[in-house]
Amino acid sequence: MQIAVLGAGMVGRTMALDLATSHAVTSFDASADNLALLQTKNNNIKIQQANLTDYSSYQAFLNHFDFVVCALPGFMSFKALQAIINAGKNVVDISFFAEDGLQLDALAKQKNVTAIFDCGVAPGMGNFILGHHAAQQKIHSFECMVGGLPKVRQFPFQYKAPFSPIDVLEEYTRPARYIENGQIVTKPALSDVAYEYFEGIGTLESFNTDGLRSILYTMPQVPNIKEKTLRYPGHINLIQALIATNFLSTEPININGTAIKPIDFTSQLLFKNWQLGPTEPEFTVMKIVLQTETEIIEYHLYDEYDATTQTSSMSRTTGYTATAAVALVNNQIFTQKGAFPPELVGQQTNTLPFIMDYLAKRNVVYCKTQRTL
Amino acid sequence: MQIAVLGAGMVGRTMALDLATSHAVTSFDASADNLALLQTKNNNIKIQQANLTDYSSYQAFLNHFDFVVCALPGFMSFKALQAIINAGKNVVDISFFAEDGLQLDALAKQKNVTAIFDCGVAPGMGNFILGHHAAQQKIHSFECMVGGLPKVRQFPFQYKAPFSPIDVLEEYTRPARYIENGQIVTKPALSDVAYEYFEGIGTLESFNTDGLRSILYTMPQVPNIKEKTLRYPGHINLIQALIATNFLSTEPININGTAIKPIDFTSQLLFKNWQLGPTEPEFTVMKIVLQTETEIIEYHLYDEYDATTQTSSMSRTTGYTATAAVALVNNQIFTQKGAFPPELVGQQTNTLPFIMDYLAKRNVVYCKTQRTL
Repeated sequence: MQIAVLGAGMVGRTMALDLATSHAVTSFDASADNLALLQTKNNNIKIQQANLTDYSSYQAFLNHFDFVVCALPGFMSFKALQAIINAGKNVVDISFFAEDGLQLDALAKQKNVTAIFDCGVAPGMGNFILGHHAAQQKIHSFECMVGGLPKVRQFPFQYKAPFSPIDVLEEYTRPARYIENGQIVTKPALSDVAYEYFEGIGTLESFNTDGLRSILYTMPQVPNIKEKTLRYPGHINLIQALIATNFLSTEPININGTAIKPIDFTSQLLFKNWQLGPTEPEFTVMKIVLQTETEIIEYHLYDEYDATTQTSSMSRTTGYTATAAVALVNNQIFTQKGAFPPELVGQQTNTLPFIMDYLAKRNVVYCKTQRTL
Repeated sequence: MQIAVLGAGMVGRTMALDLATSHAVTSFDASADNLALLQTKNNNIKIQQANLTDYSSYQAFLNHFDFVVCALPGFMSFKALQAIINAGKNVVDISFFAEDGLQLDALAKQKNVTAIFDCGVAPGMGNFILGHHAAQQKIHSFECMVGGLPKVRQFPFQYKAPFSPIDVLEEYTRPARYIENGQIVTKPALSDVAYEYFEGIGTLESFNTDGLRSILYTMPQVPNIKEKTLRYPGHINLIQALIATNFLSTEPININGTAIKPIDFTSQLLFKNWQLGPTEPEFTVMKIVLQTETEIIEYHLYDEYDATTQTSSMSRTTGYTATAAVALVNNQIFTQKGAFPPELVGQQTNTLPFIMDYLAKRNVVYCKTQRTL
C-alpha cells in the first residue's frame, strides 16, 4: 500500500517507521526538523513539508494514497480526520480531539471508508478490550488504570509528559466522568486519589480523569466503567496545591501592569520541568480489570522505552496499536464502513486477538489473567 | 512622655495602644485608613498622615517628642532609624531591615541617645535571652525555634503571613547562616527540615532560616547558635517544589510577549492565599534551648490571638517586647548610649526580668525550665 502518515512527531514517526517495513510511506509535517529526523532513521520514507491546517488541500495531496494514518495535535485533528474521510480514504487516527468522532460516521459510510479514531493505548487498547469482552459476556464492571511515567523520579513532580503537556493540564482540570450503575457520574478532576501497588514499579497514585470519551455512550450494556490515571505518589498533591492557589486559573491577574492568565505562566514553567528528554527512559503501565458474574479478568501492560531504536514506550504502545488497526483493515479482517472508536471494532471478536498478536511481535505484551469469583 | 510611633500597621497599632495607657502618643503613617482604624480603638491617640520616606523632615516633626518607636516596612526602616537618631531621640525599632544596625552605634553615641533595634519577638526576645545567659555563664549552644501560624490549617500551604509576605519569601530563598563550633556555616534556605513536636500544637516542621542577624557577630563567646523557623508539615515541601520548578526565580520569562519575573507572579498568588484575616486566630510559638556545661535551660512561648481586643499574637509578642524596651529606657534601667541589638541590652542582666515581667502583665508568658545534664 501507499500510506500517508500525517504528523511526524514522536508517535507519527514511530508509526511511519513501523508501516515502512511493509508499505510505501510518505510522512507529512509542518516541521522540517521532524521530517529530517525521521529520514535519518529510514531514508526510504518519503517526506513532505505541508501546512496540514489547509484542510481543503487534503483531497488533492491524498489522491494517490491507499490509506491514511493521522497523528496530529488535538486542536486540528478532528478537521483533518473529516477532510481525510471526505477524500475517500481509509484512516486510523491516534489524535486526542475534543470533538465527538462518531459525528463523522454518516460521512464515512457515505464515502464508503473505514475510519478508526482514538486508536492508541488510552484511549485505544482499553476500548478494544472492553468491546471484545462485552460482545461475548455480561460485563458488570470495567476499570482501566493507565499512566506514562519517567523511569527516574525527579523532585518535585516526578513526571515527564510523553505527549502534549497542555493536554495533561487539561486532563487535570476537566471534570471527570465515569459510569456507575448505568448512570454517568461527574466528579472533580483529580478526585478519588488512591494508592495502587504495581509489581516491579512500586506504589503509584490513581485518580479520576475524563478519559472514557466515546465509551460513555457506546457501551450501555456495561453498568460500571471507569478510567483512572496513574502518577508517582506526591504528584497530584502538588497539582492540587497549584489549583487551590489559582496557579491554573484562566482568570487574568495584573502583573506589573500586564494582564496574565495564571495558566499561561504556570504551564510554561511546568512544561519546561516536564519535558521528556529524547532518550530519557519512560514506561507505560496499564491495568484493566473486568468483572463478570462469575470471574475477574485482568490485563496488565508494562512497556519500556526501547533504547536500541530510541523509541519511547508511549510511542510504541500508542503507535503500534494504530498500525495494528491499519493491518486489521488492510487484511480485510475488519471491513465495516463508518467511523468507529475501538470498542466498536473490538465487538467483532476476532479483532482483539489480531491486534494483540501484532503488538506482541513488537514486544508490547498484554498479560491476561482470569480467576473465578 | 510624648511618644511618636512611626507606622500604624498591625504591630505599630498594637504598640501605640499599649503605650497610650501611660503616655501621650502620636501615630504617623502614610495610610489614612491605618490611622483611622487606630483612632476607632483609642481616640486619645493623635494621628498624623505623613510621608515617612522624607527622612529630612524627621528633625522637625519629631522635635517635641521624648521618645520614638518605629514599626515601618523593612525597605525604609534603616534610613528612618538613622533620621530618628540624627534628630537626637531615643528610639526602639521593630522593623526588619537589611542593613546592619550596629553601623548606627557611633552616631547614636555622638547624639547621646539610646537606640534599640530588632526589638520584637524574633529577632528580639531570643536575643535578650541569649545575651542574658551568656553574660552569666558559659553557654555551649543556643537554639531558637520560632513560628507564627494560623490556628486553622487550610490546604495547601496551611499558612497565613502575620507580617509582610515578601519578607517571608525572602526568608525562604536567602541562604541561612548559623554558628557551629565558633564558625559561621552557610546552608541553603529551607535546609535541615525536621519534625518537632509541640505540646498542644502537634508536630511542626523546623528548617534553617537566616534570622540570626547581629548575633552572628556579637556573641563570639557562644560557639553554637542556631535559629530555625516553624511551619505546619507539608508547607516547606510545597515551597521547595515551587523553587525547584523556578516559580520563585527572578529571571524573567516571556509570557505572550511580556517579560515577567516568576517571583512577581508567584508572590501575587501566594500573598492572596496567605492573607491573614483581620480577626483570624493565629498563634506564636517559640522554643529556646540553651545548653551549658551542666544544664539545659529552655524557654517556651505559646501566645494566641486576643479576640477581645482583636490583637494578633504576632503584634502582641512583637509589639509588647518593643514597648517593654521603651519602659526599660524610660525607667532608666538601661541607660547606655549607642545603637544596640537586644542581646547587648540583655547582657545587663536586670533587663530580661524587667521585660519578662512587662510581657507577663500583658499575658505574653515565657515558661522557663531548667534541668541538670
